[in-house]
Amino acid sequence: MSDSPTNTLISWVEIPKASDFTIYNLPFGIFRNKKLSPRIGIAIGDKIVDLSVLDQEGFFANLFLPEGIFLKDSLNELIALGKIQTKKIRDRVQALLLADNGELRDHSARGKVMVTRKEAEMLMPVKIGDYTDFYSSMEHASNLGKMFRDPENALLPNWKHLPVGYHGRASSIVVSGTPIHRPKGQIKDPNSDIPTFGTTRKLDFELEMAFITGKQTKLGDSVSTADAEDYIFGFVLFNDWSARDIQAWEYVPLGPFLGKSFGSSISPWVVTLEALEPFRTASPVQEPEVLEYLKCASDHSFDINLEVYLQPDEKKATKISSANYKAMYWNVAQQLAHHTVNGCNINVGDIMASGTISGTTEDSFGSMIELSWNGSRAVELAEGGERTFVEDGDKVIMKGYAEKDGIRVGFGEVSGQILPAKTL
Amino acid sequence: MSDSPTNTLISWVEIPKASDFTIYNLPFGIFRNKKLSPRIGIAIGDKIVDLSVLDQEGFFANLFLPEGIFLKDSLNELIALGKIQTKKIRDRVQALLLADNGELRDHSARGKVMVTRKEAEMLMPVKIGDYTDFYSSMEHASNLGKMFRDPENALLPNWKHLPVGYHGRASSIVVSGTPIHRPKGQIKDPNSDIPTFGTTRKLDFELEMAFITGKQTKLGDSVSTADAEDYIFGFVLFNDWSARDIQAWEYVPLGPFLGKSFGSSISPWVVTLEALEPFRTASPVQEPEVLEYLKCASDHSFDINLEVYLQPDEKKATKISSANYKAMYWNVAQQLAHHTVNGCNINVGDIMASGTISGTTEDSFGSMIELSWNGSRAVELAEGGERTFVEDGDKVIMKGYAEKDGIRVGFGEVSGQILPAKTL
Repeated sequence: MSDSPTNTLISWVEIPKASDFTIYNLPFGIFRNKKLSPRIGIAIGDKIVDLSVLDQEGFFANLFLPEGIFLKDSLNELIALGKIQTKKIRDRVQALLLADNGELRDHSARGKVMVTRKEAEMLMPVKIGDYTDFYSSMEHASNLGKMFRDPENALLPNWKHLPVGYHGRASSIVVSGTPIHRPKGQIKDPNSDIPTFGTTRKLDFELEMAFITGKQTKLGDSVSTADAEDYIFGFVLFNDWSARDIQAWEYVPLGPFLGKSFGSSISPWVVTLEALEPFRTASPVQEPEVLEYLKCASDHSFDINLEVYLQPDEKKATKISSANYKAMYWNVAQQLAHHTVNGCNINVGDIMASGTISGTTEDSFGSMIELSWNGSRAVELAEGGERTFVEDGDKVIMKGYAEKDGIRVGFGEVSGQILPAKTL
Repeated sequence: MSDSPTNTLISWVEIPKASDFTIYNLPFGIFRNKKLSPRIGIAIGDKIVDLSVLDQEGFFANLFLPEGIFLKDSLNELIALGKIQTKKIRDRVQALLLADNGELRDHSARGKVMVTRKEAEMLMPVKIGDYTDFYSSMEHASNLGKMFRDPENALLPNWKHLPVGYHGRASSIVVSGTPIHRPKGQIKDPNSDIPTFGTTRKLDFELEMAFITGKQTKLGDSVSTADAEDYIFGFVLFNDWSARDIQAWEYVPLGPFLGKSFGSSISPWVVTLEALEPFRTASPVQEPEVLEYLKCASDHSFDINLEVYLQPDEKKATKISSANYKAMYWNVAQQLAHHTVNGCNINVGDIMASGTISGTTEDSFGSMIELSWNGSRAVELAEGGERTFVEDGDKVIMKGYAEKDGIRVGFGEVSGQILPAKTL
C-alpha cells in the first residue's frame, strides 16, 4: 500500500498535523520504558506500536516469524529475515492501523500494543557492524577545498571519478539524545612548529543521511548499482561530530581519526526504503562520465528536506541550515557498488553515511566550518549571541522529512548536547 | 608460573623442538573438527586442549565460570570475564599439563580433552568490534615517504608527535588459511588524466602485529599509558593486504579505503600478554619529547622475531624478510592512550594493528613495496623466478616467535593465498 501515494490512507490513530510518523511512514526502532525490556516498535503519530505484543496476540500468525523476534535490543535479526518478510510485517501493521480495520482498534490488547512515544526511551536501532562515511556532496567537498587548498581547483582529481569514503569508528555511534563530551587531543597552531594538548576549539557537526544494510555479502563478491538497493534496509539522520583542529593536524596521510571518533549521533527510527519510494528522484548529471560499474540505469536519490538547529543551553533553537539530500553528487547505489567492487564484504547492520550535505547557498551548508567559513563570519542566533563553532551546552538538532502530494514521511530528529570536556 | 622464566617447566605433553606452543605460551583460540561445534582451546605442542571438555569434567570447578563459557564461536565472552579469570584458567591449564601433575594425564577423559591440532580447523578467534591500524614503524613510514614524497623530509610533520592511525574495515578480517581474491578497482596510470577499472597490478602484504582488547571503556573516558595494558588481552600476527595502485588513487584526502578493505588475515592463536612478559623490552628513544599523555613510566615493547615467506603455487617458500616487533617507534600503551584520549570508547574484541613493521636493512622491510622499492628491484625466489609484487597463486606466510633463556613463545603463522580476481 505504501507505494500508492495517490490513495489517501486514514488511520484510527490520531496523527498530529505535520507529524513525521504518518501511516505512510511506519519506521522501525528499538524502545523501552520503565516496565519493559528493549523491544521493536513502529512509530505512528505520537504512539509506538509494540510489535512484540502484536506478535504475542497472534496478529502475525500468518507470517511464521521466529519466536521472540521482536523482543530484541537491535533490529539486526529482524532485518536479516529479508525484505520480503520485513515488508510483510510493515504492510500488516499498516493494514491494522487503517481507520476501517477493527482488528486491533477494537481488540482488548490495544492499550498494551499502543505505547505513548513520549514515555518511551529510544535505544540504538542496530548493532553496527562496520561504519563507512562517504564525502558525496560536491558543494561540501568544494567548500573545504576552497577554504584549505586552492579556490581554482577546489575538488581533488579523484573526486568526480569515485565516491570518496573512509572507514569510521562504529563503537562511538550513539542514539539521538546522548550527550557528547568536548574532545581533547593534539592541536597544532598554524604559527607553531609543535602541537599542544587541549580541548578542541573548533567543535563542529556534519549534517548527513545514512543507510543501514539489510543483507550480507561474501568476501570477494561485489554488488552492482542495479542490485544495490536490495542490500539497503532503510535510512536515518546522522550527525558526524567533528573536531576540526584535531582533524587538521592528524589527517595526513591516513585520514580522519580522533577528530571524528569521539562520537557520532543517529536518529532512532529507521525509515524503510519502501516508505521513501514516493520521493525517489534523479541525481545530478555526472560529468565526466563515470566508469561502467558506477553507472545507474534508474534513479537512486531521494527528495528529503533537511534542517539543522542550534540551541544554546536553556535558550531557543535557531535554524541555521536548510539543505536537501537529493543534491548529492553520488547516490547510494554508487556508494555501495564502489564499496564492494574490490570484494569487501558487508554485513547486516553496517551503516554508510553520506558525508556532509551542503547546498549551493550559504544558508544550506551542512557544517559550522562552512557556515562560518572556518570561523571568519559568525552565525547569528535567535535570542542574541552568535557562533563560529559549537560551544559547551549547545544542542545541535537535525530534522529531515519528505513531503509530496499530501504525503509526509519524516525522520524525527537526531539531537545531541555538547558537555564540557572531562578532566583527564 | 608464566612469569618465572628461570624455572624450567616440563610438560607430560610431548612438545616438538622449536614448537611455538610450549608450556610457557598456552594461547587461546577457537577450533572445531568434523564432529565438534566451535569451541575454545589452548594450544600445546601439536595438541589443542579442549577447554569445554575440561570444564565438563569439573577441572575448573573452583573458578565458578559461567555455564558453557568454552562452547563459543569467539573468545569475546571469555575475555570479557577479565584478566583475573582468564589468567586463572591459563594457570590452571598450565598446572594440569606439568609433568608431575597426574590429574589430567591419568584421567579417563584425557583422550577427549587432547585434540590433535592438525585435525582441527581454526576459526576467527574473536568477533571484532572495531579495527584500527596504526603506522608506528619509523622505518616503514620513512621508506614510503622517501619513495613517494621527499627523501630529505621522509616523515610528515605529525609523525613523531602522535601514533598516526586510521580506522580499517573489520568485516573483511579473516583467519589464517582463508584465500583472498585479487581485488579490482580504479587505477590511474601516472601518464593518464583519468582512471581505468581493472585488477590491481600492485598487490602487497604488510607484516604487522595486532593486539586484541579485553576490557571496554565508556564513551568520553580515556585510558592512560599506565593503565593501557589492563585493556590488552593478547596479540596475533596480522597481514594487512594492500593494493598499492588502488590505494594511491583513492587515499587523498580521507585515507586508505578499498586499497585495504578487500581482506586482512590474522593468526588464529591469541598469545596472552602474560605469556609475552619475559620478552618485554624498551622502545626506541623518542625525540622530540612526546606530550605528557603519551609518556610511559615503564616498558611496553616486546622482543618478537618476525619472518615473511613467499611461496609460489606448488613451489618452495622463500624467506623474504626478517624483522623485529621491538623496533616500533610507538608502543601499544601509547597507541591505546592516543586512541582513547578524545573519549573514543573501546569494546572487548577490538583489534588494533601496529602498521607495517620494517627494520633498518633491506632484508627487514615488511612489505613488497619496500622490498622491491616500488617495483624497481625484484626479490629473487628460492626455486627461480622473482617478485616485485604478489602474484596469483602466491601464498604469503608470516611467522613470529619470542625466545630467551631457553623459553620460546610463538604465534604459529598467518598465511593466505592469492586467488585470481573474480569476474564481475
